[in-house]
Amino acid sequence: MTLQSIDARTGLPFGDTLSSSSAADIDIAVQAAHAAFADWQASEGSSRATLLDALAQALESDREALLALADQETGLGLPRLNGELDRTAFQLRRFGVIARNGVPFAFTDDPAVSGGPPAGHPAMLRVRMPLGPVAMFSASNFPFAFSVLGGDTASALAAGCSVVVKAHPGHPQTSRRVHGLVQQILQALGLPSGLVGMVQGAGHEVGVGLIQHPLIAAGAFTGSTRGGAALQAAARQRRRPIPFYGELGSINPVVATPAALQAGGEALAQALAGSITLGCGQFCTNPGLLVFQRSEASSAFVQLLLQALKAQQPHAMLTQGMRHALDAGTRAQLAAGASALLHEPVDSLNPRPFLAEVDAATFVANEQLHEEVFGPASLIVWTESVAQTVQVLQAVGGSLTVTLWGADQDTPETRALVRGAMAMCGRVLFAGVPTGVAVTAAQQHGGPWPSSTEPMSTSVGDAALDRFLRPVALQDTPAWLVQRQGRPC
Amino acid sequence: MTLQSIDARTGLPFGDTLSSSSAADIDIAVQAAHAAFADWQASEGSSRATLLDALAQALESDREALLALADQETGLGLPRLNGELDRTAFQLRRFGVIARNGVPFAFTDDPAVSGGPPAGHPAMLRVRMPLGPVAMFSASNFPFAFSVLGGDTASALAAGCSVVVKAHPGHPQTSRRVHGLVQQILQALGLPSGLVGMVQGAGHEVGVGLIQHPLIAAGAFTGSTRGGAALQAAARQRRRPIPFYGELGSINPVVATPAALQAGGEALAQALAGSITLGCGQFCTNPGLLVFQRSEASSAFVQLLLQALKAQQPHAMLTQGMRHALDAGTRAQLAAGASALLHEPVDSLNPRPFLAEVDAATFVANEQLHEEVFGPASLIVWTESVAQTVQVLQAVGGSLTVTLWGADQDTPETRALVRGAMAMCGRVLFAGVPTGVAVTAAQQHGGPWPSSTEPMSTSVGDAALDRFLRPVALQDTPAWLVQRQGRPC
Repeated sequence: MTLQSIDARTGLPFGDTLSSSSAADIDIAVQAAHAAFADWQASEGSSRATLLDALAQALESDREALLALADQETGLGLPRLNGELDRTAFQLRRFGVIARNGVPFAFTDDPAVSGGPPAGHPAMLRVRMPLGPVAMFSASNFPFAFSVLGGDTASALAAGCSVVVKAHPGHPQTSRRVHGLVQQILQALGLPSGLVGMVQGAGHEVGVGLIQHPLIAAGAFTGSTRGGAALQAAARQRRRPIPFYGELGSINPVVATPAALQAGGEALAQALAGSITLGCGQFCTNPGLLVFQRSEASSAFVQLLLQALKAQQPHAMLTQGMRHALDAGTRAQLAAGASALLHEPVDSLNPRPFLAEVDAATFVANEQLHEEVFGPASLIVWTESVAQTVQVLQAVGGSLTVTLWGADQDTPETRALVRGAMAMCGRVLFAGVPTGVAVTAAQQHGGPWPSSTEPMSTSVGDAALDRFLRPVALQDTPAWLVQRQGRPC
Repeated sequence: MTLQSIDARTGLPFGDTLSSSSAADIDIAVQAAHAAFADWQASEGSSRATLLDALAQALESDREALLALADQETGLGLPRLNGELDRTAFQLRRFGVIARNGVPFAFTDDPAVSGGPPAGHPAMLRVRMPLGPVAMFSASNFPFAFSVLGGDTASALAAGCSVVVKAHPGHPQTSRRVHGLVQQILQALGLPSGLVGMVQGAGHEVGVGLIQHPLIAAGAFTGSTRGGAALQAAARQRRRPIPFYGELGSINPVVATPAALQAGGEALAQALAGSITLGCGQFCTNPGLLVFQRSEASSAFVQLLLQALKAQQPHAMLTQGMRHALDAGTRAQLAAGASALLHEPVDSLNPRPFLAEVDAATFVANEQLHEEVFGPASLIVWTESVAQTVQVLQAVGGSLTVTLWGADQDTPETRALVRGAMAMCGRVLFAGVPTGVAVTAAQQHGGPWPSSTEPMSTSVGDAALDRFLRPVALQDTPAWLVQRQGRPC
């Protein structure tokens, strides 16, 4: 099989035709990553920081060419891609700081307590071991931040793991160019080229072959629920199952009190319309569900939202396949009982915004309506009470985010909403819109199924590092090993 | 179906016949746990500590009757069971201290940084939410410490979760008596009886029904690889998969240099024989594999070990089924190429110690030899070099513990052994024997498959709490909620 770059705005092929990786290619890449891991797991934090800083610098130095290529392959536009490259460099450097500060080597020193058990115990040292070579599956919608040098790669390298990237077929030339930069940096720093390997392929064989390679120790994935579930199943079918960190689909409910909608008015409607259509709706935190309580204020807000959405001009979607999936998704919502408020079918790569509505009882009863529709589309769910709003959140069950507008006062109703939101998502926003995920100490990007395969972990923020470090207790540790203070030897 | 206590020493039934829980019983217990969770998740640490302390006290106050019952059902003997009850009370109180100290409510305060992304970001608060009702599957071999009031229940309650225990059919009356104590304490403290529910059954239907109940939020299991894998599969088949923390089988390699064996001599051989036969070998940390480098010193040590093992008089196994499984396991080892060094088949509930040997190449090539044999049995693997010893560890792949005798000096060989051990287990011991798991801050009881389904977590030690708390980021949190500092509302 071959790979071909497609101009997202024209649907026409451009550039070289690339070959899919063969089973032998995958084996070579993983063997090289395994060999590189042997030394990298024992590297100093400063060495990891040096590499991560150099990678950030390399991205920035090649900015113009990278942006041009990524823009043609994805159609996401230069301003957005410029910001994404900044973010990617930022998180590389941030994980460099984390490594330099010794976070991967933090340990618990638990001195011996004399006497018999249960109170008495031997000296224990709790450290963390890098898992090994990580299979990193790139996303379609973030050609930099969740791709070759994205947060998964940055956090895995900082943790002391090597990486084999599965490039996304939606931006093969951008991936190839970034990987070329990586190889230059590795060579300049005298590090093995296998530390960051790359394979590619449009079919599922390459991904399955990679995650099932016996020397792969973990998987990290950002993409669709279907694709992530398939790779998770493949990871579990291994003779020795491994951790698989998948960020999958999410519908990101926005819950608002009538008072909050009235207070927010035009500006809030504009902000929400902008979030629904940002990047043509191709964000995992895209607000796909608007849970409003029936009231005049809510109805008035929906009119403002409709006007704001009509004025939006979404750009082309990442691929023609996604464009078709969007139409299928909106049709499925309407077939499942939703009524269209804004539905302007167009035969174009650039879709029009879509808005529909449904009552809460129909929503709760119909699982089809809980499915993510990837693109500039959102569904209003009308509820009669706070209790019904909580039922809607329970029916959704798992989401990366919930946005709660109007929770400023401590009331029983507000507490019920906060509790209902926290029970089923990884991040609750009390202001603003869910698109945009800060790379910061407290971030949690992951929630209960289907938003994530491992809801106890995060793929964005400082704690993303923890995914690749396994705790090990050392008992009666010899002096020479105690002196290493948690560093693998 | 019914349940019947069996006297482990005679194989004869005694006491009441108990009924297996029906699907309706399971639903009632889970609904009650769900209702109890609503308030318990928001309880103060001091309330949790009060409950855990009272449960510890209740166990101690009923010690005599509990030990008599458990001894008859399990045959583990009063000294061991007495120590296990002490340990169980200790860990209940320890998790009480952890809750009182506010560990479940620890949070990351991440103030806003002005400016645009990626450096600028809104105010974030990272807290942890209790998961919900936990399904807790008791172990056969620890009627107190991994049963109704064991570490899983203690850590789940401390985390703010409610619990539904699946009692083990090997000690139904002990379980019933402990659960009766729990109910008395809950009533005395004015807490809902559903906070710690219990179901029971000898078949797999009760366990599957429990883990697949839609209101169950996590599973915790200690037992066989087969049983754990089946429940894990059931947890994954749910419409909404949930975390399943299983502690499964482990063969716990003991690796020793010839010099260490020579230095240890008679005393070390006695200690190892005691560990192999402790509790009739029915410990998850039982040393089932001895990896020795061929040498005169090693051969001499094996002779000492043989003498020490011959003198051991293991007590009856927990159940007749386990007794038969032991014979089948040792036969399978011999059929797979191992040679018996100590093999005295007896037609009795009390087995004789078993010791066999095999060369490293045969061991590495034969997966049958990597299987746990539950009971007083161990297999010597003869290696020719440190490199081959590391290959043996890689072939085992996953274990709760590795014991390394002779790693006192920092040499390339020692480093290779330490690295090989840390790569495939949760705890490395540099002295002593692996049986006995300290309940302490640095403990890690869990390792790569098949020893654990979630090797990033531990079922023993302070970090066991983390299994039941899911991170949630709060963005632009209102003042009233900030004031709660990470406590669910």
